Amino acid sequence: MQIYADNAATTKMSEAAIKAMTDCAKSYWGNPSSLYTIGQKAKELLEEARADIARIINAEPREILFTSGGSEADNQALLSAAMLGKKQGKTHIISSAFEHHAILHTLKRLEQNGFSVTLLPVHENGVVDPEELKEAIDDNTCLVTVMTANNEIGTIQPIKELGAICRERGVLFHTDAVQAVGHIPLDVKAQNIDMLSASAHKFHGPKGVGFLYAKKGVRLSNLIEGGAQERGKRAGTENLPGILSMVAALKEAVAGMDKHAEHMKKVRDHLIEGLSQIPHSALNGEAERRLAGNVNFSFEGIEGESLLILLDQRGISASSGSACTSGALDPSHVLLAIGRIHDVAHGSLRLSIGEDITMEEADYIIENVREVVEYLRSFSPVWRDLMTGKKEFIL
Amino acid sequence: MQIYADNAATTKMSEAAIKAMTDCAKSYWGNPSSLYTIGQKAKELLEEARADIARIINAEPREILFTSGGSEADNQALLSAAMLGKKQGKTHIISSAFEHHAILHTLKRLEQNGFSVTLLPVHENGVVDPEELKEAIDDNTCLVTVMTANNEIGTIQPIKELGAICRERGVLFHTDAVQAVGHIPLDVKAQNIDMLSASAHKFHGPKGVGFLYAKKGVRLSNLIEGGAQERGKRAGTENLPGILSMVAALKEAVAGMDKHAEHMKKVRDHLIEGLSQIPHSALNGEAERRLAGNVNFSFEGIEGESLLILLDQRGISASSGSACTSGALDPSHVLLAIGRIHDVAHGSLRLSIGEDITMEEADYIIENVREVVEYLRSFSPVWRDLMTGKKEFIL
Repeated sequence: MQIYADNAATTKMSEAAIKAMTDCAKSYWGNPSSLYTIGQKAKELLEEARADIARIINAEPREILFTSGGSEADNQALLSAAMLGKKQGKTHIISSAFEHHAILHTLKRLEQNGFSVTLLPVHENGVVDPEELKEAIDDNTCLVTVMTANNEIGTIQPIKELGAICRERGVLFHTDAVQAVGHIPLDVKAQNIDMLSASAHKFHGPKGVGFLYAKKGVRLSNLIEGGAQERGKRAGTENLPGILSMVAALKEAVAGMDKHAEHMKKVRDHLIEGLSQIPHSALNGEAERRLAGNVNFSFEGIEGESLLILLDQRGISASSGSACTSGALDPSHVLLAIGRIHDVAHGSLRLSIGEDITMEEADYIIENVREVVEYLRSFSPVWRDLMTGKKEFIL
Repeated sequence: MQIYADNAATTKMSEAAIKAMTDCAKSYWGNPSSLYTIGQKAKELLEEARADIARIINAEPREILFTSGGSEADNQALLSAAMLGKKQGKTHIISSAFEHHAILHTLKRLEQNGFSVTLLPVHENGVVDPEELKEAIDDNTCLVTVMTANNEIGTIQPIKELGAICRERGVLFHTDAVQAVGHIPLDVKAQNIDMLSASAHKFHGPKGVGFLYAKKGVRLSNLIEGGAQERGKRAGTENLPGILSMVAALKEAVAGMDKHAEHMKKVRDHLIEGLSQIPHSALNGEAERRLAGNVNFSFEGIEGESLLILLDQRGISASSGSACTSGALDPSHVLLAIGRIHDVAHGSLRLSIGEDITMEEADYIIENVREVVEYLRSFSPVWRDLMTGKKEFIL
């Protein structure tokens, strides 16, 4: 059995997305900035795509900026808000402790440039508390950025409430919605969102394409300077094949969203129940406010990396944390943020299932994770210490 | 007849490039940063692609960074060199007056941040004089950036000589080779190049993909912060379908380079000869050191925009300047840089032919340009002033 359970890392492009990309590359490959017919036709399609994206998140077309992906969108959103803040003499930014590195590393850079950053706690449940945002905001705050859904543990944040607090205090509110767009309903107006980042390859679209929503009136700073594309806010010839492909994928994702979520939740909960039977294991992040596709467990006494390698041998593709940091040996900052200690954070497993997952596949996953965890524990010195009472169980 | 003569703006993807993209999207769509087999297979292909690119420009694989295109590569190169300069207390940058806006606008931003910029003249022939670079370099210079071939008039710069001067003076040398890669031979070692930017869609590859070559030891600064991709220097999930597509296109372009250049030069020179017959016209930039695909003419007494619209009606896609600035009504900064006055710069035409151009198509272009220029002059007030002696002819 071959099961891809790492859809939070990337998804396979849908047939419709591939077709949209190749059709465009073959038939509408003109430069949208050109005067002649084939350029103007490309321009038309580009603006239709912008309107499609806008409609899906309840924004205006001119509020959508196409980027090379979620990281670029995150970077541009934060730098823009920081520049706007600086002009008003405001240099305080609030975020959460378990943001994606595209946010955290950009914040680090802003700190080096005179900004102060407060990271809100995310508690054991993996959810930011709006009351704590209220307390953290002060007159020096220029930006609050909290992700819509976490990429490792899938917990969904109270975006609407956080946005309302920001609006009341006149502070810009950005959300990294890379894991959420195409998976849960989003409405930038109803949810009080000023800026939002998205990435196509997380919803069966192409890699290398994303978008940034920025509310009218929020002046963007350029990350990439050059030509006058994207209203002068993002230079570089527009990647129309990628953009049309993203739109095709997003339309499909949104059309199937309810049906897929219902199915995936059933399978997810079955997985959670099954994996909970493994002794000294625990679900990371709360079960309720959680993406339909996300299961994240810690197993005491094992190494996540070995777990992944052995699961891969059994046909299961999964991850321990975010793919973006898999090179690092550090334990996940997300799991540390929800209070897992180093040892426990190390022995974690993220399963991000797709809409095509079956109950049989879920059973196969449960059975194999159970076997592999048992096997790894059989020669783990940490497990021996736990079993002999030299160390105390945490989970 | 339908003739696409704007290959400097963008090219149509080759069949091989489309196939490489779709094959990858269908079969090798894993996240290259993931531990499991399909991620590792993607990682392997990514590193093969890096080695392929490196081989083609005579670099080392680790010197190649994949980007979302030429503009991003230009931005990152300049910002990196500026940061390195600042650390050494050097804040002077030398460039040329007719660089692409991805360079000029980034330099403008650096000027706002305390750097001083010298733009070398490009003279009537459209070529930078190495002697003038020698004079301009001083002990405060941290970077010289001169494009390999100009995007509007196609003139090829003495890169090797400029690079040698920089090397002698210990100054970093970057070249925006967006118009050159895949069209003329490039060898970063032989040509003394420290950094080089390229864009796939200029050589029949996909839009939204490019690369930056940076010599070992040249420490890059991040433009996009986040995950640890690209040795931590460019965050964002790697666009493997785009990258493999770029490599497929570049391999084809390099394999056919000599043959294509020989054919295109013949057609180009035929076009130049034919268009020269139009009274009061002039080739922009010298004929010798020039891309095989580039023809750029000024016609006195007409508006470039009207010329393009009428040529489009006759099936000819061409441009007046760079596509990136077509929104603007300003005359081309490139033509002003080679000494054309405003009126003459306005009445210009860039034909950038592809390798599939035929002599018959060239004749069709010549005939139609001649007719349209005559027609436009027939009711041009400027032309009447010229003909009645109220104004003096320049060309």
